[in-house]
Amino acid sequence: MRALCWDGHELSLNLSYPTPPKSKIEDQASKVVGSAGSRLDVADAQAALIKVHLAGICSTDLQIFKGYMNFHGVPGHEFVGSVVEGPPALIHKRVVGEINFACGRCEFCRLDLNRHCPNRSVMGILNADGAFAEFVAVPAMNLHVVADSLSDEEAVFTEPLAAAFEILEQVQVDLADEVLVLGDGKLSFLCAQVLRLASANITLVGKHPDKLKLIKRLGVRTILLNDWEPKQFDIVVEATGSESGLQLAMSAVRPRGTLVLKSTIAGEHKLSLAPLVINEITIVGSRCGPFIPALDALREKSVSVTPLIEKIYPLSEGIEAVAHAGRPGARKILLRP
Amino acid sequence: MRALCWDGHELSLNLSYPTPPKSKIEDQASKVVGSAGSRLDVADAQAALIKVHLAGICSTDLQIFKGYMNFHGVPGHEFVGSVVEGPPALIHKRVVGEINFACGRCEFCRLDLNRHCPNRSVMGILNADGAFAEFVAVPAMNLHVVADSLSDEEAVFTEPLAAAFEILEQVQVDLADEVLVLGDGKLSFLCAQVLRLASANITLVGKHPDKLKLIKRLGVRTILLNDWEPKQFDIVVEATGSESGLQLAMSAVRPRGTLVLKSTIAGEHKLSLAPLVINEITIVGSRCGPFIPALDALREKSVSVTPLIEKIYPLSEGIEAVAHAGRPGARKILLRP
Repeated sequence: MRALCWDGHELSLNLSYPTPPKSKIEDQASKVVGSAGSRLDVADAQAALIKVHLAGICSTDLQIFKGYMNFHGVPGHEFVGSVVEGPPALIHKRVVGEINFACGRCEFCRLDLNRHCPNRSVMGILNADGAFAEFVAVPAMNLHVVADSLSDEEAVFTEPLAAAFEILEQVQVDLADEVLVLGDGKLSFLCAQVLRLASANITLVGKHPDKLKLIKRLGVRTILLNDWEPKQFDIVVEATGSESGLQLAMSAVRPRGTLVLKSTIAGEHKLSLAPLVINEITIVGSRCGPFIPALDALREKSVSVTPLIEKIYPLSEGIEAVAHAGRPGARKILLRP
Repeated sequence: MRALCWDGHELSLNLSYPTPPKSKIEDQASKVVGSAGSRLDVADAQAALIKVHLAGICSTDLQIFKGYMNFHGVPGHEFVGSVVEGPPALIHKRVVGEINFACGRCEFCRLDLNRHCPNRSVMGILNADGAFAEFVAVPAMNLHVVADSLSDEEAVFTEPLAAAFEILEQVQVDLADEVLVLGDGKLSFLCAQVLRLASANITLVGKHPDKLKLIKRLGVRTILLNDWEPKQFDIVVEATGSESGLQLAMSAVRPRGTLVLKSTIAGEHKLSLAPLVINEITIVGSRCGPFIPALDALREKSVSVTPLIEKIYPLSEGIEAVAHAGRPGARKILLRP
């Protein structure tokens, strides 16, 4: 099987990588017998083998290539594909998949917080091979069937769009709330659109005039970072992943307001805690999110994702694709195995 | 008038300090005409002059003596006293007072967030003399009459107890929630008791066996810091004000749990943000709180405060009193003018 592999030092295209260790996934899947969740009306305890149609390269992947999570194996956790082996009800179905492979038995799984299962593996990130390959194995209970009306190019955004929807799971956003999104990268683009479904007052601050133009068309107010004048918002979403972004975010939250941290930033950061206490700010860490509202929004065309695509590379040019994704200001790079 | 004064360099007992600049307070109070709040059924726009019975020295005062807030003047914001000048309905009444003197006209005041009024002065902390004096002037609308059944020694704890009640205003605490309070200082003692009113599972970690013994008697589980074994809680309240406390607090919050920062810590602190995002922790800054539930709790004897008192000094020994309050492990030091 052809797969893009990261050995902890180097990214290489490996033609001899074995077809995903389905047995390993099944070992894991066998643990989930008895789980309350049943998303597909098929036996949870089965694994599915998926032929990958498209996979997206995201900032977390780029951090992984720098050593984040000390991951070795096939990266990639944004994908759409079709099931070639697994529960009969799923065979030939086009699917996207949730990336946290939970144990189904622990306290968190019982509370329907399986994205926080302490025994989880995470595809392409932690102890499970990911989707930068011709085939990927995923527990069947993690899969969602994609509506025919959605193209692969739309469906491949389900995972990052779900991460944007996570904000609405965690924070009460009201129509009149003034919301600021910091950053004009891919995640900011999705967050701003999702927040726009809840509030009428979304502002996005970014560095790139061309990207701001793109988001402005979707009904979001935009400000070029150089033109920023101090103002305070009810809710601020930090999605730049930079320390300067964090400082700006802190200064832009009103007293008793909420700051959502949407980027996984490695390393330690300095934070002045006195203003946080004096102004009674709430900081909310926010990661993976629910797939169902994301798929609904894609189907209802209430969010727009394809303008984010910069280029689609064949998997055979995966190394160039990753280099492209790492260029400052690059939009979404996709891989087609 | 006798008052303890801090000139930015030195704390001194000043016998010639003028009776509080009531006119200044009235200038300010005149701005609050039309405010929605009317706590005492008297004209809001009046100032009251209060003869101080007792005042408490808290950690914020000690930070002020180190330069925090660059405050010059009479410190002190925990007090009980009786009204000697002001609205007729208040004359001779025993009162405690909210410490944020709000403008009553801004957006925050209109939203009943007057503790966050950007135009506020704060008694003994920002642009207003405080209670380490024979007399103190406070806007009448900030005062609450104290029930006769409460002693001065109890009532003087209303302000810090209100700060503990602020947690219940900000965070939903359920009976089954596992709650950890970090620190065995005065604020932790109050926070643990207030949280115990909402949850059956309160644990407090501290360094001082004698203090832990005190809090244990009030129905709180206690752990000596040296005996701490990693465990995760639904809600963690950081009230040590130390960087090591913050690190321990972060490690003790379960995924999707809440960390309440209850100490105003000056300076910058390093915080590893990746776990915050990965585990979707919520951090809540928490400061001054509501006086009414604090006074109710004192009256109903549902919290116990007097065991916290270490010593009462006459105001004439104020400098020694402040030195005593600064000793590691000291409990509450009170001043009696």
